[in-house]
Amino acid sequence: MINVAIIGAAGLSGLELIRILTRHPHASLQVLTSGKYAGRSACDAFPELGDVELVFQQHDAALNGCDVAFLAIPNKASMELAPKLLAQGQRVIDLSGVFRLRDTEVFRTHYGFAHTEPETLKQAVFGFPEINREIIPGAKLIGNPGCYPTGALLGLLPLGDLMAELAVAPVIDAKSGVSGAGGRVEDDATNFMEVNENFKAYKVFEHQHTPEIEQVLEDCTAYDRGRHGAVVFTPHLLPLGRGILSTIYLHFNEAMDPDAIRRRFADFAAREPFVTLLPAGRGAELKMVQGRNDCVISLFHDATAQKWVVLTAIDNLVKGAAGQAVQNMNLMFGVDETAGLK
Amino acid sequence: MINVAIIGAAGLSGLELIRILTRHPHASLQVLTSGKYAGRSACDAFPELGDVELVFQQHDAALNGCDVAFLAIPNKASMELAPKLLAQGQRVIDLSGVFRLRDTEVFRTHYGFAHTEPETLKQAVFGFPEINREIIPGAKLIGNPGCYPTGALLGLLPLGDLMAELAVAPVIDAKSGVSGAGGRVEDDATNFMEVNENFKAYKVFEHQHTPEIEQVLEDCTAYDRGRHGAVVFTPHLLPLGRGILSTIYLHFNEAMDPDAIRRRFADFAAREPFVTLLPAGRGAELKMVQGRNDCVISLFHDATAQKWVVLTAIDNLVKGAAGQAVQNMNLMFGVDETAGLK
Amino acid sequence: MINVAIIGAAGLSGLELIRILTRHPHASLQVLTSGKYAGRSACDAFPELGDVELVFQQHDAALNGCDVAFLAIPNKASMELAPKLLAQGQRVIDLSGVFRLRDTEVFRTHYGFAHTEPETLKQAVFGFPEINREIIPGAKLIGNPGCYPTGALLGLLPLGDLMAELAVAPVIDAKSGVSGAGGRVEDDATNFMEVNENFKAYKVFEHQHTPEIEQVLEDCTAYDRGRHGAVVFTPHLLPLGRGILSTIYLHFNEAMDPDAIRRRFADFAAREPFVTLLPAGRGAELKMVQGRNDCVISLFHDATAQKWVVLTAIDNLVKGAAGQAVQNMNLMFGVDETAGLK
Amino acid sequence: MINVAIIGAAGLSGLELIRILTRHPHASLQVLTSGKYAGRSACDAFPELGDVELVFQQHDAALNGCDVAFLAIPNKASMELAPKLLAQGQRVIDLSGVFRLRDTEVFRTHYGFAHTEPETLKQAVFGFPEINREIIPGAKLIGNPGCYPTGALLGLLPLGDLMAELAVAPVIDAKSGVSGAGGRVEDDATNFMEVNENFKAYKVFEHQHTPEIEQVLEDCTAYDRGRHGAVVFTPHLLPLGRGILSTIYLHFNEAMDPDAIRRRFADFAAREPFVTLLPAGRGAELKMVQGRNDCVISLFHDATAQKWVVLTAIDNLVKGAAGQAVQNMNLMFGVDETAGLK
Repeated sequence: MINVAIIGAAGLSGLELIRILTRHPHASLQVLTSGKYAGRSACDAFPELGDVELVFQQHDAALNGCDVAFLAIPNKASMELAPKLLAQGQRVIDLSGVFRLRDTEVFRTHYGFAHTEPETLKQAVFGFPEINREIIPGAKLIGNPGCYPTGALLGLLPLGDLMAELAVAPVIDAKSGVSGAGGRVEDDATNFMEVNENFKAYKVFEHQHTPEIEQVLEDCTAYDRGRHGAVVFTPHLLPLGRGILSTIYLHFNEAMDPDAIRRRFADFAAREPFVTLLPAGRGAELKMVQGRNDCVISLFHDATAQKWVVLTAIDNLVKGAAGQAVQNMNLMFGVDETAGLK
Repeated sequence: MINVAIIGAAGLSGLELIRILTRHPHASLQVLTSGKYAGRSACDAFPELGDVELVFQQHDAALNGCDVAFLAIPNKASMELAPKLLAQGQRVIDLSGVFRLRDTEVFRTHYGFAHTEPETLKQAVFGFPEINREIIPGAKLIGNPGCYPTGALLGLLPLGDLMAELAVAPVIDAKSGVSGAGGRVEDDATNFMEVNENFKAYKVFEHQHTPEIEQVLEDCTAYDRGRHGAVVFTPHLLPLGRGILSTIYLHFNEAMDPDAIRRRFADFAAREPFVTLLPAGRGAELKMVQGRNDCVISLFHDATAQKWVVLTAIDNLVKGAAGQAVQNMNLMFGVDETAGLK
Repeated sequence: MINVAIIGAAGLSGLELIRILTRHPHASLQVLTSGKYAGRSACDAFPELGDVELVFQQHDAALNGCDVAFLAIPNKASMELAPKLLAQGQRVIDLSGVFRLRDTEVFRTHYGFAHTEPETLKQAVFGFPEINREIIPGAKLIGNPGCYPTGALLGLLPLGDLMAELAVAPVIDAKSGVSGAGGRVEDDATNFMEVNENFKAYKVFEHQHTPEIEQVLEDCTAYDRGRHGAVVFTPHLLPLGRGILSTIYLHFNEAMDPDAIRRRFADFAAREPFVTLLPAGRGAELKMVQGRNDCVISLFHDATAQKWVVLTAIDNLVKGAAGQAVQNMNLMFGVDETAGLK
Repeated sequence: MINVAIIGAAGLSGLELIRILTRHPHASLQVLTSGKYAGRSACDAFPELGDVELVFQQHDAALNGCDVAFLAIPNKASMELAPKLLAQGQRVIDLSGVFRLRDTEVFRTHYGFAHTEPETLKQAVFGFPEINREIIPGAKLIGNPGCYPTGALLGLLPLGDLMAELAVAPVIDAKSGVSGAGGRVEDDATNFMEVNENFKAYKVFEHQHTPEIEQVLEDCTAYDRGRHGAVVFTPHLLPLGRGILSTIYLHFNEAMDPDAIRRRFADFAAREPFVTLLPAGRGAELKMVQGRNDCVISLFHDATAQKWVVLTAIDNLVKGAAGQAVQNMNLMFGVDETAGLK
């Protein structure tokens, strides 16, 4: 059994980790921490968890005997805690945004504060199984991908070298449920009266997930920021709990062969356990993925076959956070990658 | 024109007052206050208001030239401010709960703090037009009714002396939209992730609106707390923005004449400008009243005619707060009671 | 393995049965039927089911080799099909309302048509495990309980003989999510524009689940319809997908001992695998039970201890339908009652 | 007074017309028709309308004495009825899609049936006040714009000749509330269980509003379909009642002067009574426009000023349908364009 600690277990991602890991055949929850609920048992504070008797501890709880710690805490708290845990020999899967971007200047611009742990950052492996399946097993520190980048990248990675044929950079119009607002559940912006019956874009041209998407596309595809220009990414807030639908617009220099494009995605879906390609004409919807570690993809093109729309749907708390984190854990500990996730 | 100040104009009730009063033929907004938005114009902070150019001031703004001040601020703030304004000769319509209950012991029990302004309280007129239409015009201080009592009482007052025939006290099962949580929009309990797709009761047997309902029933009907026992009132939180549906259960000692009962409600609706009785068999729904200063009522009885269900629907922000407050203002200043409200 | 057929597998209850049974350790889906989706595979029609490759057949599909058939079809269709299946030696768990009420006169009054299969009805066992755990194993035909009766009865059964002390019959104010409207998903009444931001009661004093509740209370508790009068039951429609919250009002002739009452419920919860009693002061909420086969109960009383409120929360599609049906299947086939349901 | 008939008055657009016109200072409702509600009064069928005593008639009601008829009926019904009314000398404002596209071949492709009234079509004026204010007064037949085109065009028209500088055609990612699904309220696709907690795109690259947008852009701006390619338009369905947010992506050949662009939109907003430009940095939200005949616009550009995002928000039932139709009526009858709409 893999002995697990969850730091920040009473936030939305933390609770989702509890849900997944209590049903995981190879994992055993040992430590849950929460500032707010310290001293209460998980099932007392959250009856919906069923019979999880474990008591929440303070964030500085001893992790003796744990094989891995999931950090589901705010950015600065993760940046501070991760090096300490690593120094104790603890393996860490971090769900915050601080161990994803390699360029600390870009980080500062988009996160609004300096990265104080550049050495730790160098050790971090980007926990995107579809890309880094080979190196995740050896990682001490995983930077678990952002929810928006997960949804966007799974719709672009299959294009690979064809990204060179783009006339302009991709436009990613993403719509997220409220749980994707990153655990800031006390925030006024996520008050029911603000969100219900409302819809809006936010952080237009400014969201910190944009460079995360660009970094991966430059690493893994023929996308070239210098030549194609910056990726355009616009997040929106949906009046619902869970899920991200990304509508990705691609404009190629010339007509692309629809069969060839579809084959690339079909091959990708065939080899990836958590990617589903819908048949032609069928559109991805959030209800197809809620509560599941799956990414559902659909493809559309116009009459010229030069313009394409890729739709991807994920559950931001599962494939976009806790589920992907557990997928990383499975890879790190050599168990079936899909354990606890089907 | 009636010159108006709204203290706490950026809360939910305050915004509703702005909406109503900007369309009111005899009112002119002079002063809006808001701690959070002070210095910004109303239409800048809230584009949905249209072209309301007035700038929010601090709560201690001078009210020179205002004929009436609406207080849409928390309980303790109202208790402190109302006497000061009255001392300046200002007429006040208070939307908080502090000037409704005559008995300060009952107040302390249900509000959790002592009433420090008993003399001011004695001047207060309970701003329920259907009851106090005659004395509201002379009032210096109006205690505007609570949203739940408004919905419950409009379903019980028409029974009048027939309340003596009850075998047990009425049971009022009330369900409110989130805006009825009283402006506490920063509260965790009203976060979207808490409310959406959820439903719950709260403050069972403990809500402070219970004695407000009882006080009025004892004043205006044959209900007798000593004989019938305490009113049973259970509020619930609906995952929607506006409206209160009250399902009121009555158990009479013997069969009541359905025609006689219906006639009482029909007469009440005929003489009250903001009460509608639905035809037999038709049930009140929240959508019938949202955005309107109306109370829609429907009546049902079982085969014995001994058990009755009265349904009432109001918009908690309109008939349950701002609309009723404007109705009171209309009465205080001798203009048509329905001005600005139809 | 228990070989299973689901007749009407593409309705809301049918889909929930698929979800539960694909994860059930002792069940194997053999036949799924659907008029609308016949010829398509389940995972094609409903990608959210994951990899359920089984193809929907017409409702008259041969059930050779099936050990049990779940009927998740309309009332009249069930009434017609069940006797045929029983005649073929098939065991049947029926989720419609036609095999629950023993009195066919009461049935006709509340369902609006005559019961044409009184002999079949006599064989039916009411599939309420908390009551009939001993006789369910031998049943050929299970009448699976209604969703509202399940929520109401689990909050009343623990009182047992104390029900004799009631001054008046219980008042059950129940609020259901839209999926509880029984699969009539094409109905105008469940259109988004009708339900969203709306709330209403329906079938006041007329709902067909009232006699189902009364029948069980008379069988299993000291409730006496002649003496206490008819149970008052009012269903309401919530603007959310899943869950029923029942607010049950009890008025006893005298003060009841709070410890004694709580102990009865605690004992009940201790011996029942799918009942949870919340600690004093904590209220049941729908989010505690959604997606789970649990009933969460909380208890409140007033200062006199004569008036009580029992809150129960269930997921209408799970404990109120498909989950309870699988619990019955487990009992019928002698496997662990909780298999597939935890 | 303008005497008005509404054909199809009980649909969503029809009801919105009733709401607006009962408060209109220069209009008088004379005839309401509805197949479903014929014989019932409007306030009986829809208590939320207040005291509208008019009785719904059949669709073939005589319109004697009416100055104008609004058609809020399905496409084919409008195509059939409009010529008859025009032949009787009736002026018509048609809210369907059949009198908007000049090219009947394009019409057939996108609407799926042949246009049988090409002569009537030639008389139709596209009822977009911001474009055709000069010719609407003389129109006998108005083709009221589609909801999506209204939102998209108000965000593009101010660019005028600058549209020539686009490197590629605009991408319009639009998200609509359920009421925008065009009155098909009985449709399974708009059932609560389908829409609630769900989000999806539909008719990708196939929606009939695409050529409507292109036709106007070619008429009124320097957009050139031949050179820029087809407009990319993707509609999505939001789980809420009202509103369309359009996120419009523009990619110019070179950097555009932000001040110049903003000035164009500011000038447009200054001269248009129902267009509001938000200050820089502020994003349009649906709540800003619900229930109002306004279009709220906000502008964003990236660091290069070559890529722009225009956000527009409208209420699809008001500015996108009934409100705009009344605006057209005001122009046709020479009263203040904003009458009844502020």
